[in-house]
Amino acid sequence: MHPRRELLAQRALGVTQSAVRDVFDIAMDPNLVSLAGGNPWLADLPLEELSRIAADLVAQHGTESLQYGPGQGLEEMRQAAAAVMAADGIPDADPELVVITPGSQAAIDTACRTFANPGDVVVVEDPTFVGALTTFNTWELDPVATPTDEQGLVPSELDATLTALAAEGRRVAFLYTIPSFANPSGALLPEERREEVAAVCKRHGVLIVEDNPYGQIAFDGDPLTPIAAKHRDNVVYLGTMSKIFSPGVRIGWALVPSALKREFYLGAESAFIHASTYSQMLSTAFVTQLDWQGHVRAVTGLYKERAEALASAVREHWDPAVDVITPRGGFFLWATLPQGVNTLELMHRGIEAGAVFVPGAAFTPVDGIHSTLRLAYPFVESEKLVEGARRLAPVVNEAVAANRSR
Amino acid sequence: MHPRRELLAQRALGVTQSAVRDVFDIAMDPNLVSLAGGNPWLADLPLEELSRIAADLVAQHGTESLQYGPGQGLEEMRQAAAAVMAADGIPDADPELVVITPGSQAAIDTACRTFANPGDVVVVEDPTFVGALTTFNTWELDPVATPTDEQGLVPSELDATLTALAAEGRRVAFLYTIPSFANPSGALLPEERREEVAAVCKRHGVLIVEDNPYGQIAFDGDPLTPIAAKHRDNVVYLGTMSKIFSPGVRIGWALVPSALKREFYLGAESAFIHASTYSQMLSTAFVTQLDWQGHVRAVTGLYKERAEALASAVREHWDPAVDVITPRGGFFLWATLPQGVNTLELMHRGIEAGAVFVPGAAFTPVDGIHSTLRLAYPFVESEKLVEGARRLAPVVNEAVAANRSR
Repeated sequence: MHPRRELLAQRALGVTQSAVRDVFDIAMDPNLVSLAGGNPWLADLPLEELSRIAADLVAQHGTESLQYGPGQGLEEMRQAAAAVMAADGIPDADPELVVITPGSQAAIDTACRTFANPGDVVVVEDPTFVGALTTFNTWELDPVATPTDEQGLVPSELDATLTALAAEGRRVAFLYTIPSFANPSGALLPEERREEVAAVCKRHGVLIVEDNPYGQIAFDGDPLTPIAAKHRDNVVYLGTMSKIFSPGVRIGWALVPSALKREFYLGAESAFIHASTYSQMLSTAFVTQLDWQGHVRAVTGLYKERAEALASAVREHWDPAVDVITPRGGFFLWATLPQGVNTLELMHRGIEAGAVFVPGAAFTPVDGIHSTLRLAYPFVESEKLVEGARRLAPVVNEAVAANRSR
Repeated sequence: MHPRRELLAQRALGVTQSAVRDVFDIAMDPNLVSLAGGNPWLADLPLEELSRIAADLVAQHGTESLQYGPGQGLEEMRQAAAAVMAADGIPDADPELVVITPGSQAAIDTACRTFANPGDVVVVEDPTFVGALTTFNTWELDPVATPTDEQGLVPSELDATLTALAAEGRRVAFLYTIPSFANPSGALLPEERREEVAAVCKRHGVLIVEDNPYGQIAFDGDPLTPIAAKHRDNVVYLGTMSKIFSPGVRIGWALVPSALKREFYLGAESAFIHASTYSQMLSTAFVTQLDWQGHVRAVTGLYKERAEALASAVREHWDPAVDVITPRGGFFLWATLPQGVNTLELMHRGIEAGAVFVPGAAFTPVDGIHSTLRLAYPFVESEKLVEGARRLAPVVNEAVAANRSR
């Protein structure tokens, strides 16, 4: 029983720290191989050039970069966001419809604030982004998983889910989806399914919140066109500087349907006034003054190498009963152990063996035993990734063997 | 009727842009004298030294300053926050109980998230900070004004307010108060009242959210000791870099009672993961490497001059029926016109006359005609402040005269 229970809001009672965050704290130990956090690789950023820009932003523009700015975000930053979205596959995003947020987690939070009443359903992929689940929990929403396959959302299943929810009289605040290289599954939703998902949601009158941090981290070929590109009026599209530039600047944004912009922007302003002016100006400079797409190409190449090294090592050292999807982009390798193996229990044994992963239980709104786990590769050099897979092998393999003989 | 009404949350329906923000947009016009925004004066910051630090943070520490950081905030930043709080009058703040937020608006929002259920009461001063009212509106809270005088909260009235609310069976989430140089009134709550307020709240089992952005901007004498100093277990204390350093970095914090820290921190994390790492490191450097208290002393001296110039000009040019409180610190001069004058109507006439103020209606949860207005002086040089007061004089004086002859 909480000692100050009477002071807490209903939504704060029994709130639990996410497994990812628990693991983040543990993962600071330099003796461990951390396959936990979705940190990008920053050492290959043009730090010298960025440093000169950072200095200039204070010396020449300090009274602007250190001052309050407009609630919707600086116009230059909104234009830079539009340039990033053009590379995502949305060629004509209107900066007037962009709201800059302190990271895209804050944009997810603002979407809940603007579109969801307590008790509403949010339809999600299972598995889905742990940070989104945390926010939904805060807003007292009910995340309902719609069945997915290795390519992500299944339009007919989504239709059935929405039909069933309508029959139950539930209000669906929105569909939350990561169509490109999803966190944590890595799934890439095919073009034709994107159109079908849009059509299903339109038919049901359900808004889509499309989260696309990883779209440009595509290992072969160009990014697939976001749903928002052709369905601007029914999609709130979330972008971020976190994976292509820097998560530390905390700059994300939402491209909002015109009719909903005012409410979204005012909701955002009520939460944080505006995102850091300095961070906005540094991010703008990254997009307008540096070869940012060259950087994205370079790190994407690096991530592809690392993903392949990790996938090979897992296939080599882990029991073949473990199903591994080789990533086609993004930040994560998703592994499915035989049903019955509880990966939450394996996490601590993995740490004892010297490597950290995130158990699948973190990524699902469904209670019960989960046999999945997520491995992140962008921040770890290939040899260490291989070492991590080797350290985890006895833990995984023993659990698989024990499960087999039960 | 909103064209996409069915997509919006209840709380987002009918949300209105704050008068302050309307005015901020207008106030960008360089032909106007803006007495609207609470912008600090930044031109006297040690920009050259800060520029070198900013460059170094990228060139030498870029893989850290541009990366994700801990959800509670960097340890160095939490120590820097403790150093600022020591200067506020809280000598022994524990960095372990500090949660860093992207500006203190986000800390107010987190307090609502953590402590307030929809429909709860938040007890406020009248007038109070417009940004807090906006957040309370988002969380569907009911801000109830407790009577104040020119020194701020009146403990006996607060007791009566809380007693009446208890009798009505209302849950009070917290008292929101700005005891030192309040926004917008400038009121400074005397030491003895601080103790009484703490005692009244303790007796009623009501948490205090003490917001202290201006405490160190004291024109004569030292800051008064915050309520939190002696009542740590019943006060969530909010601090910020915005007024003493830079609002553009968006760094604020909460010092939280030990028993409530976990929920507060997890609520914050669900909203924005963490505040900008780079902003935290720049703010830390300001506090640890530069003569930050010298800067605060210098701008406080400047603000005092400006406040006096503005107050003198208002007294000289405005009808003597206007009651003006000469600020003893902080950012704002508060003027009360004769009852019946509607300052919201005067705002647009003021803009036509070439100067912008914020009408009192922005700062109160109480509907009706408000005869007060707020003038901000830190960001405007003295001659322009005088010019602004002169431009507004005919608008104010005509309204006072018309009101008299009604």
